[in-house]
Amino acid sequence: MESKPGDKVRIKTDKGTYEGRLMPSKEGHVLKLDTGYNVGFSDKVKVELVEKYIAPEKENPETGEGEIVIIGMGGTISSKVDYNTGGVHPHLSPKDLLKLFPELSSFPSIKTIPLFSILSEDMNYRFWQQAAEVVYKEIKNGAKGIIILHGTDTMSYSSAALSFMLRQTPVPVVFVGAQRSSDRPSSDSRLNLMNAVFTSTNNIANVGVIMHATTNDDYSFFHLGTRVRKMHTSARNAFKSIGVPPLAMVDYRRKMFEQLSPARERDMKRKTLFDKRFNPNVAMIYIHPGIKPKLIDSLSSYDGVVLVGTGLGHAPTNPNKHPFATSILENLKQLISSNIPVIMSSQTIEGRLNLNVYSAGRLLSEAGVIGSMMDWTPETAFIKLSWILGHEKKIDKVKEEMLTPLEGEITKRSAILSTTYLQVDKLAQPHVGAIGWLTDSPLIEV
Amino acid sequence: MESKPGDKVRIKTDKGTYEGRLMPSKEGHVLKLDTGYNVGFSDKVKVELVEKYIAPEKENPETGEGEIVIIGMGGTISSKVDYNTGGVHPHLSPKDLLKLFPELSSFPSIKTIPLFSILSEDMNYRFWQQAAEVVYKEIKNGAKGIIILHGTDTMSYSSAALSFMLRQTPVPVVFVGAQRSSDRPSSDSRLNLMNAVFTSTNNIANVGVIMHATTNDDYSFFHLGTRVRKMHTSARNAFKSIGVPPLAMVDYRRKMFEQLSPARERDMKRKTLFDKRFNPNVAMIYIHPGIKPKLIDSLSSYDGVVLVGTGLGHAPTNPNKHPFATSILENLKQLISSNIPVIMSSQTIEGRLNLNVYSAGRLLSEAGVIGSMMDWTPETAFIKLSWILGHEKKIDKVKEEMLTPLEGEITKRSAILSTTYLQVDKLAQPHVGAIGWLTDSPLIEV
Repeated sequence: MESKPGDKVRIKTDKGTYEGRLMPSKEGHVLKLDTGYNVGFSDKVKVELVEKYIAPEKENPETGEGEIVIIGMGGTISSKVDYNTGGVHPHLSPKDLLKLFPELSSFPSIKTIPLFSILSEDMNYRFWQQAAEVVYKEIKNGAKGIIILHGTDTMSYSSAALSFMLRQTPVPVVFVGAQRSSDRPSSDSRLNLMNAVFTSTNNIANVGVIMHATTNDDYSFFHLGTRVRKMHTSARNAFKSIGVPPLAMVDYRRKMFEQLSPARERDMKRKTLFDKRFNPNVAMIYIHPGIKPKLIDSLSSYDGVVLVGTGLGHAPTNPNKHPFATSILENLKQLISSNIPVIMSSQTIEGRLNLNVYSAGRLLSEAGVIGSMMDWTPETAFIKLSWILGHEKKIDKVKEEMLTPLEGEITKRSAILSTTYLQVDKLAQPHVGAIGWLTDSPLIEV
Repeated sequence: MESKPGDKVRIKTDKGTYEGRLMPSKEGHVLKLDTGYNVGFSDKVKVELVEKYIAPEKENPETGEGEIVIIGMGGTISSKVDYNTGGVHPHLSPKDLLKLFPELSSFPSIKTIPLFSILSEDMNYRFWQQAAEVVYKEIKNGAKGIIILHGTDTMSYSSAALSFMLRQTPVPVVFVGAQRSSDRPSSDSRLNLMNAVFTSTNNIANVGVIMHATTNDDYSFFHLGTRVRKMHTSARNAFKSIGVPPLAMVDYRRKMFEQLSPARERDMKRKTLFDKRFNPNVAMIYIHPGIKPKLIDSLSSYDGVVLVGTGLGHAPTNPNKHPFATSILENLKQLISSNIPVIMSSQTIEGRLNLNVYSAGRLLSEAGVIGSMMDWTPETAFIKLSWILGHEKKIDKVKEEMLTPLEGEITKRSAILSTTYLQVDKLAQPHVGAIGWLTDSPLIEV
């Protein structure tokens, strides 16, 4: 019988026999031992099933009227196919979804709020502000979990925005979407929605995203809202955690909610830090060969700029004054001297910035470009800067806040070496097309 | 004994015993059978080593004076660490590299041309044009293979540019770089450079990129120049093929050059289609929530625009006239009506565009935005458009050329279902952090 992540398994090697829980992994097998440590094995070893996943005994949170709140913001999960045009339109209210998925009735009583019905490419800060207000109010009124139905295109921007607007929520705020509309037989929305509701009843209190972990209906990942990214135009498992493991793997059918990385615990007494102020006057600029200095000059009416640079965080600076090359260094300096913060991120998506290795980086850093040693995604850097500029104008203060981890959006290098991180650094988001986090260490051969 | 990709192995299952060559794969095991078909196995099966990789008997191409040409364009592979500042500077000529790596003397006589010495964030079309001229001349003079030392930041832009400027080269044109400078003990440049030289003597004639396939010194991948992307700021295996398998896995020590996807054969009689014309007046615009219509208006002085859209190829169009939402549709229409082609690509990096599913896509498509059903990377779309605009001004002709596959930069959907593609669609770029191509089909269980 095939073992799945979550199952108890046994692996025999020359050096001994190991028993533990099978974790998701991209290469080889990873066991979580009872000690809490993970051990990696080459995929040559045989994996014996000891026991299918059995949910640990734990008390369900007490439930009552309207304790789980589903807020509809549109997207494919709330959409129907128009069989005349083949197009997809956001027409389903959260109530309609309850009818489509009768399994939901096994969960605590659910309150539904149809807030917006838009496709997520039209999303912006005004929708985020209104959603944050509604979530804040529902939490104050005793909601034990929040689910937000949302389109997938900009879901990671929205999950980052609500992560900052609603810091330290006492309960989970779970974004969920679908890559195929809910009325289609092949839709991924059933597993996603059921796992979102299941997550919202669990002992975790981050703003995050539930989406398929694999191309099958196996289980979902719960991704931290500031670390997730859509990495494929259409695949079910398009969403990946960048630079960190997902928070948890989730399968409501097996009552599995297996934490994969540090998360915040549910605590109804904790007060949400609510700050919906947001400055939408921020530009996001893709660096590429031949980018024109005048494009940078045209940004003087913005209050902040995020560069999506190359490699470790670079842009053309032409330090050796090559006659063929151009530079945008002076133009960036001009922006910065006008009190416009300029933030670096990388178009490689994965990996940590470092502005200290090459001359371009050092020149940019000396000019005041912010971001060396950070590992944020371009989208989260953009959202964080816009949110900070909602309450802070001084460039030094903006820099200080940008470089301070608030909601898991950056990991300090030293933290990577902590035991907690080492325990999870072998976990991976499996399956073809996955982008996970990188470690230079090979699997431990045992 | 551990089996590596390339080795002959045996796998026994209930349904029979299979022998074949082990291919790189991200999940399970993939064997290439003698019939040429690939079969996938779950990673639960045991893999017996039959025979370590032995290079097939084949004649080496005849070699003589200066038949392999190494052209230096700078980058980390040509760099030394300055131990005073910790900085890295491009100071090594190709000749210095020959001294650093004496193994190179086992290869055919090598000619070196130190062309530029810049870090690749300063690269642009003028460097590409000069490099293309030199490559063209060397091929005309009988070079049997070309190697280009290049920085990694913009290597995929350069490999795409030379793919279009030098179509149908009779011999391989191999870009190679390093993530650590060549004078460091931990440098990845030895394996990369040796595999680049080995590739340049093989029977393949694409413009491509050789970089580490894994975080170890196992082997390299040869990636198609129009399909490769740097997907990590600093890891050795940062380079990934997007949407297709790599062209080949390469290990000079085992004389392994194992083709993984269709490639062009070496043919000294074929004439290079040389066209170095290039229009650098093209903008690359990252779509994000809150992007301002005036940013689109400011592009009227460009000759072409590439949008890095969301999801299937979207941008804000606000079809339902929501009072919170804005639209850039009219602004894009204005550009297009001024004869400025607007090309769509996706910030998800992986996956095919489709402008026919959602209203945003259909509105953009009706407005004349080009790219539905294409699977190009944003960077290759940008390079291809700039190159086409070097020789063509009419928007209809530009569209026609954009949608025609020239150098493997797009795969038509029907081609995906061809036998050739099915033979390779199970191959994957292994290891943590890999991004490969996606298939919705699970491994064949045999």
